[in-house]
Amino acid sequence: MSAAPTPRTEVRRLPERGSYDRDLINAILDEALICHVGFVHEDSPVVIPTIHARIGDTLYFHGSPASRMLRGMRSGDEICVNVTLVDGLVVARAAFHNSMNYRSVVLFGSPRIVDDAAEKWAALEAVTEHVVPGRWADSRPMADKEFKGTLVAALPISEASAKVRTGGPKDDEADYDLPIWAGVVPLTMTPEAPVEDVDSRVDVAVPGYVAEYRRPGTEA
Amino acid sequence: MSAAPTPRTEVRRLPERGSYDRDLINAILDEALICHVGFVHEDSPVVIPTIHARIGDTLYFHGSPASRMLRGMRSGDEICVNVTLVDGLVVARAAFHNSMNYRSVVLFGSPRIVDDAAEKWAALEAVTEHVVPGRWADSRPMADKEFKGTLVAALPISEASAKVRTGGPKDDEADYDLPIWAGVVPLTMTPEAPVEDVDSRVDVAVPGYVAEYRRPGTEA
Repeated sequence: MSAAPTPRTEVRRLPERGSYDRDLINAILDEALICHVGFVHEDSPVVIPTIHARIGDTLYFHGSPASRMLRGMRSGDEICVNVTLVDGLVVARAAFHNSMNYRSVVLFGSPRIVDDAAEKWAALEAVTEHVVPGRWADSRPMADKEFKGTLVAALPISEASAKVRTGGPKDDEADYDLPIWAGVVPLTMTPEAPVEDVDSRVDVAVPGYVAEYRRPGTEA
Repeated sequence: MSAAPTPRTEVRRLPERGSYDRDLINAILDEALICHVGFVHEDSPVVIPTIHARIGDTLYFHGSPASRMLRGMRSGDEICVNVTLVDGLVVARAAFHNSMNYRSVVLFGSPRIVDDAAEKWAALEAVTEHVVPGRWADSRPMADKEFKGTLVAALPISEASAKVRTGGPKDDEADYDLPIWAGVVPLTMTPEAPVEDVDSRVDVAVPGYVAEYRRPGTEA
């Protein structure tokens, strides 16, 4: 599925890197652990990192009702969400042509606060599963007080675009003859060996979904 | 050095995680490859990922004069910059207490376009060196046309705060007796083996600063 760009989501700088393909947009949203939410607060732009989770065509956010970001979402004002995965450093012969390989999504819209209990439960499960797939069923379930004390907001994924750069450096023709190394340094977000809580009282084996933790899209 | 918080930079949610220590703020800015810049464009918030570089108390950005973000910086309007390093997943016994370990900086201010040639050269060198330390001296130098075709903006690092979470899960007292594994999955941005440009014509050894690439603060 692919939607036409709007004036805000149209990739104008280096348009060959732009895409409006929904599968690509979803894959980037799902792989990225966090997003950056931009909103306007008292006439100033504010950018806050937060965890997101996607269910179908909706992006969910959660947090304390005291959070400035979520209070802003209550207003129905527009927000902008950006998700960026840095995949590598592009080391060109010319300083001017250095670049990065990346996959990025930008998303505009007006969020709504989720009041429906079933939708809110599904969103909170999705947020847990977004970060550590397999964890929701294995956790001490959310208590009623915790559920009521958490605010959930929803943003339709309708006005969105992706921007992607892959591959090696693009130098000026004459520069390929220079004795300068050029190439790419791939970067990956690597999980290290899990560290058990020093305050643990019960001896429990590390669950497989923790021991073999990988981001979706980066599985071996 | 530490500056008093302003109403915008004061960490209100979980204030024990907040810091106004300039050395900490600088270390986070220097380690992070990219930042997210928020600005207001035609009444809408917009968030764009970009490369930054710090020289002393100034953060620099660069790009094409056609970039919407840099054109916005020309206006002198306020922007917000957020830099976030995700250090680990905090897997708590209760779904409600799942968290992340992170180091984040938020920065507000009005950028200016850098017209002074010496300052602009220094900023462009800093941007290259921010991404791949050691590369500037080893690159084909920037041509006059490239220099003139690049816009550089500067933001004073004056209104800034850091927010940091470290350590293990913080569960409710009763939950420590549950037979549920809890702990932290550390995450690191790992450089893989450099991949030489397939279009290389000259046989050049991989430079040490590429072969042993590490982010500042993560050196072995």
